[in-house]
Amino acid sequence: MENFTFYSPTEFVFGKDTEKEVGELLLKSGAKKVFLHYGGGSIKKTGLYDRVTASLKEKGIDFVELGGAKPNPVDSLVYEGIELCRNESCDFVLAVGAGSAIDSAKAIAAGVKYDGDFWDFFDQKATIEDALPVGVVLTLPAAGSEGSVATVITKEDEGLKRGLGSDLLRPRFSIINPELTYTLPPWQTAAGVVDMISHILERYISKSEDVILTDRLCEATLISIMEAARKVTNDPENYEARATICWAGTIAHNGILGVGRREEWTTHGLEHELSALYDMTHGAGLAVLFPAYMEYTLDEDVERYYRLATQAFGVPENHYDKKSVALEGIKRLKDFFREIGMPVTMHEANAKEEDIPKLLETLEKNQGRKFGSFKKLNLKDARKIYEMACA
Amino acid sequence: MENFTFYSPTEFVFGKDTEKEVGELLLKSGAKKVFLHYGGGSIKKTGLYDRVTASLKEKGIDFVELGGAKPNPVDSLVYEGIELCRNESCDFVLAVGAGSAIDSAKAIAAGVKYDGDFWDFFDQKATIEDALPVGVVLTLPAAGSEGSVATVITKEDEGLKRGLGSDLLRPRFSIINPELTYTLPPWQTAAGVVDMISHILERYISKSEDVILTDRLCEATLISIMEAARKVTNDPENYEARATICWAGTIAHNGILGVGRREEWTTHGLEHELSALYDMTHGAGLAVLFPAYMEYTLDEDVERYYRLATQAFGVPENHYDKKSVALEGIKRLKDFFREIGMPVTMHEANAKEEDIPKLLETLEKNQGRKFGSFKKLNLKDARKIYEMACA
Repeated sequence: MENFTFYSPTEFVFGKDTEKEVGELLLKSGAKKVFLHYGGGSIKKTGLYDRVTASLKEKGIDFVELGGAKPNPVDSLVYEGIELCRNESCDFVLAVGAGSAIDSAKAIAAGVKYDGDFWDFFDQKATIEDALPVGVVLTLPAAGSEGSVATVITKEDEGLKRGLGSDLLRPRFSIINPELTYTLPPWQTAAGVVDMISHILERYISKSEDVILTDRLCEATLISIMEAARKVTNDPENYEARATICWAGTIAHNGILGVGRREEWTTHGLEHELSALYDMTHGAGLAVLFPAYMEYTLDEDVERYYRLATQAFGVPENHYDKKSVALEGIKRLKDFFREIGMPVTMHEANAKEEDIPKLLETLEKNQGRKFGSFKKLNLKDARKIYEMACA
Repeated sequence: MENFTFYSPTEFVFGKDTEKEVGELLLKSGAKKVFLHYGGGSIKKTGLYDRVTASLKEKGIDFVELGGAKPNPVDSLVYEGIELCRNESCDFVLAVGAGSAIDSAKAIAAGVKYDGDFWDFFDQKATIEDALPVGVVLTLPAAGSEGSVATVITKEDEGLKRGLGSDLLRPRFSIINPELTYTLPPWQTAAGVVDMISHILERYISKSEDVILTDRLCEATLISIMEAARKVTNDPENYEARATICWAGTIAHNGILGVGRREEWTTHGLEHELSALYDMTHGAGLAVLFPAYMEYTLDEDVERYYRLATQAFGVPENHYDKKSVALEGIKRLKDFFREIGMPVTMHEANAKEEDIPKLLETLEKNQGRKFGSFKKLNLKDARKIYEMACA
């Protein structure tokens, strides 16, 4: 087990009707003027916008708003948010929406307190030293941004999709009402499920030895997510299954499932190029790439994949042929992604084999020529993984 | 699943040599003068005291100290600590030790900021509205106080042992170095293991339906604790097993294993009377009482105990006779407690059947005449549980 720090100071307020507590939580956080940030307007259709703003008004909290956050949130909206937030002297950023709204809210919160160009943080030219506090009302369990240090922003003109993390970006509070997810399109639910599974696998598939408690917590969460995802396919208003997915999405990325392990994040790096080039849903890109990454790195640690297959994916044990068991585990994961409606090949995701050179070009810009710690990879390996994902 | 708030803002710094980071963590917390609180002096024998104070000196942090915290920490030391802490104008309370030192440190931290008698908090005559920040260097994984809201103090003259919780008492940071636990006497290791298992069971044995993810996380942790406890019996310097026990002890009580469930805490209430009357080690008292409580409440929800038996204690499934399976699970837990050297009857713990009226008398003072939510209990039920624990 590696030494670790686990720090997850966010107050998670979870359950039915909890969005009505947002005013009270803002008051407790000392917010006076809130910068309210959201996505494409679905929160207005569902009435969530009205409930949230009513709660703010009830507590006498002033706010200005900026909608328009899209999946793979872009730098232009962050610049716009920073300017508006400064002009209006907001002291708290509230994201109401999915990971995209939360991620751009985090970037705005950091950018407001920085004199230079906020992209400096993503270019590693500057470190976040101050940020406005951020709060969240979550509408889509997927990115885990409601409990994480992370934000991922796309710089449109250069086609760069980059992430960074800072404890200063961890939300003060995150409100999670599973009922808000009843009306999600099946595609979005499924892409979210793939995303959270990937967040666990990026921690689980690691060379750190002997972290048995973390392993078991990861396996327990994987089993629960897959079981719940199958339930909501036929029964989208199943509260318990929705709640399981919501909470699993949060703990998949707040750090608790990574303690004691060196984390990996290679497949996320490979996927960022896919979603930047095609504006692909992040979860869909992960569904395409993760099984390919796993197969490509299988020989690096068959034992690890064997454990995953038997403890999380229900493959019967067979000590005489662990590699076949491990491969069957990867196949089951791929089958599961397909079952819930995700693409599992580049072709199914409308990505083209002939674009692989383009993907490698931006990958090199973002990650350099070498990456990965579970298996050390270079651009040639990356090409092979993209190729494997085509079939 | 019940609505819940999960809030665990403590920064957990875990691993080898981490006690050397205490000065840096105090500096980050803004501490200027530290009230250093510890137990019976074992930290001086092991050199931990020297390493901690060296780290403080290195960072230029002034401190005053008060040792003497004992298992079942007492009010007199809390009063002494409050006075010293005030006279010396300390602005941070650092506990170096086991749950006892942490619990009295928490009571001191709250008492310093309160004009009245700190026992008012435990008498429910007052609510904690302010407290000095608390930090921890943990030496014994057991109470989980390093990550919890809770403190339990014994009022000696009246023989009352009472607990309370407040988010203001959650440690700012907790340093957990598993190597510090290598030299623990086997009895203390075992009592700690019982304590953390009990913290999970107080959450798991509950009537709240459909909290499958929390259930699985609990079961994963129970399995890991029991496996690791067996390892350290023969191999006390097994780092991985010690680390598993340490981290399990923390997550068993920081709230993550209780989300979505109504928590119980009845057996803890019953045990407090045992440890108050006999100055018994808390974990030993729990080893005596928990199996009795479980047997007594089995019929309330056989399904629940069946799941526990099959998913955490390795009893084979048998859908035709779930009650026998459930009973076998309770037996296995009791056998495990015995195997690691814990008493499993009042007699083995040097408690006397003829004292039961005394236990009931203080129980009534502390808890009233009715308690429990999994099964509603009165003093007659409590008598029966104590009696069952005699055999």
